[in-house]
Amino acid sequence: MKPKSHIVNLPVYQPGKPIEDVKRELGLDEVIKLASNENPYGASPKVKEAILAELENISIYPDGGAVELTADLAKTLGVNTNQIIFGCGSDEIIALLARAFFVPGDETIMADQTFSVYKSNADIEGAVSIEVPLVHGTHDLDAMLAKVNERTKMIWVCNPNNPTGTILSEQALTAFLDKVPANVLVVLDEAYCEYVTDPSYPNSIPYLEKYSNVVILRTFSKIYGLASLRIGYGIGQPDVIKLINQVREPFNTTRVAQAAAKAALKDQEYIASCRRANAAGILQLQGEFDRLGLEYFPAHGNFIMVDVRKPAGEIFDALLRKGIIIRAGHSKYPTHIRVTVGSEEQNKAFIHALDQVLEEQKAQV
Amino acid sequence: MKPKSHIVNLPVYQPGKPIEDVKRELGLDEVIKLASNENPYGASPKVKEAILAELENISIYPDGGAVELTADLAKTLGVNTNQIIFGCGSDEIIALLARAFFVPGDETIMADQTFSVYKSNADIEGAVSIEVPLVHGTHDLDAMLAKVNERTKMIWVCNPNNPTGTILSEQALTAFLDKVPANVLVVLDEAYCEYVTDPSYPNSIPYLEKYSNVVILRTFSKIYGLASLRIGYGIGQPDVIKLINQVREPFNTTRVAQAAAKAALKDQEYIASCRRANAAGILQLQGEFDRLGLEYFPAHGNFIMVDVRKPAGEIFDALLRKGIIIRAGHSKYPTHIRVTVGSEEQNKAFIHALDQVLEEQKAQV
Repeated sequence: MKPKSHIVNLPVYQPGKPIEDVKRELGLDEVIKLASNENPYGASPKVKEAILAELENISIYPDGGAVELTADLAKTLGVNTNQIIFGCGSDEIIALLARAFFVPGDETIMADQTFSVYKSNADIEGAVSIEVPLVHGTHDLDAMLAKVNERTKMIWVCNPNNPTGTILSEQALTAFLDKVPANVLVVLDEAYCEYVTDPSYPNSIPYLEKYSNVVILRTFSKIYGLASLRIGYGIGQPDVIKLINQVREPFNTTRVAQAAAKAALKDQEYIASCRRANAAGILQLQGEFDRLGLEYFPAHGNFIMVDVRKPAGEIFDALLRKGIIIRAGHSKYPTHIRVTVGSEEQNKAFIHALDQVLEEQKAQV
Repeated sequence: MKPKSHIVNLPVYQPGKPIEDVKRELGLDEVIKLASNENPYGASPKVKEAILAELENISIYPDGGAVELTADLAKTLGVNTNQIIFGCGSDEIIALLARAFFVPGDETIMADQTFSVYKSNADIEGAVSIEVPLVHGTHDLDAMLAKVNERTKMIWVCNPNNPTGTILSEQALTAFLDKVPANVLVVLDEAYCEYVTDPSYPNSIPYLEKYSNVVILRTFSKIYGLASLRIGYGIGQPDVIKLINQVREPFNTTRVAQAAAKAALKDQEYIASCRRANAAGILQLQGEFDRLGLEYFPAHGNFIMVDVRKPAGEIFDALLRKGIIIRAGHSKYPTHIRVTVGSEEQNKAFIHALDQVLEEQKAQV
């Protein structure tokens, strides 16, 4: 049983500890998870009704083409239905792009600290990831452009960037797109776009008309609050979407997810309220980091990357013992942690724990 | 944007018509779908409770490792937890096997009329499908064995076979496994195994100890009645499961699916009742086919493939106009249709429609 040679040494996904296990092992009554950029307010209340109505069809295969949801989304976005593909999270669209386009030896360009799934899928296909250092936590588009050569097949631009939270402006992005050769696919991963309030942030949908090589990724896992249901999507030219569809499994999203996404999409008032609450949460956390004298990257998603000036793994462990789960382990930022913007109460609890942890660390020196 | 050369001409999945569209277009009040081998009795009533309890976590990512469900299933099957991998249906396990193992030029052996997803995934990876004719609707294991050469990487054995419904006996299968070289993976697709009542049908789980090259695929989409939730699994040697895990997206099944599968697995009384009802339904349909003088393959899953002695597409269309959706379009069996064993009432309605259709066809001659 000889597998593809380039997958043999890939890491296996290690499942995170369930919150219940953390509670039991550490003897904690409450654990707050600010590690996965989930919506602390949950999904629109209309989602639950939609799911309940769908449960009578639980034994029936979903509509593999997600026809109704595609029609609703196409109308919302102002694109054609043949420009949209749904996946088991936008993760799956990344995997499908890799599966459709990469052959061993292809090159693909991305930031050196960005969403890890781009590189892991390039690795699976034997494509070479060219990782370009971020500058001040932000994509260096000129340096990325300088890496384009005849082997380059795809460029990944995460905007806002996960984990730093920084954005690229309309101006910076269009200047970049103007220079990328038309045969190189540019994937704009906008998983957090609905959170952005900065007016310089682009509405990328019109790019699809001007640049035939742009694919946009978005998701219902973040502001829409449906992470558990695994539904995200890609938007692009019909010919690119067709190619991705050719490598898609027929039934890749569930009935429950499709029904929930339809209901969530309709409730834009709820989305607006989540966006406002998140913006307030960013200000709340930034104010606390300022008080603590900690530097952070400008945050535009629902998370902030802050420099705790200690090995991030130690701070992670110390916070975990106090019942707060955040994210550490970013190789390019060994003293930064990434924390999800929670509810006001969750943010307070996190800051309270962080205060204590930083005091304890001081005492140890 | 140059895709993999071998995917360019692959077919795009064409979504089936929603039942609602069929009703509207044909002016029908009721449409019975006996096309996708879904469980006509639905899932265990305990599933709904489990889903409702899970809805409070809708915004939280699922456990990517499906730790609790894996533990329950491992106990039920009598295997270790590192021998199990879950997927978005067993379809996804097929795709992951292909993605982990195939390189262009590899050969993979399968029946010439079997589950189409084996070949479509081999195509995506540039592997060559060697399709061995069925004999009397049954896998010809000797002929398949004769096709094994140094390029052979994987053999697919669908048992019961979809779409013919035939099974391979314990004796036939072990004689075959004894002869397959250990470096060739044998995938036993047992999506319908829980329906089988024939005592010659193998319990394949012990094969995992004897044959290191066996992977078994099963699903919650069929007798467990969870097709809409997309959850299936593979069972194999830990080293093979590890390789598949290396190409798996971290969050490939939903919280709702994991909770539903846990509850469904516990209710084995319900499964036994579905198996009994299905066996009765097979007898009911076979009796009617005998009355009509139609030949059929021995049915062991929850579907029957019957020779209607007319172009199957015509019978499909005629049945559709009467509100019955079945499956046609099997290239090796142009006059056979595949019909799911429904409830007693659904089976009656199908037979009533079939009676009329066959009469109309006679009248046209």
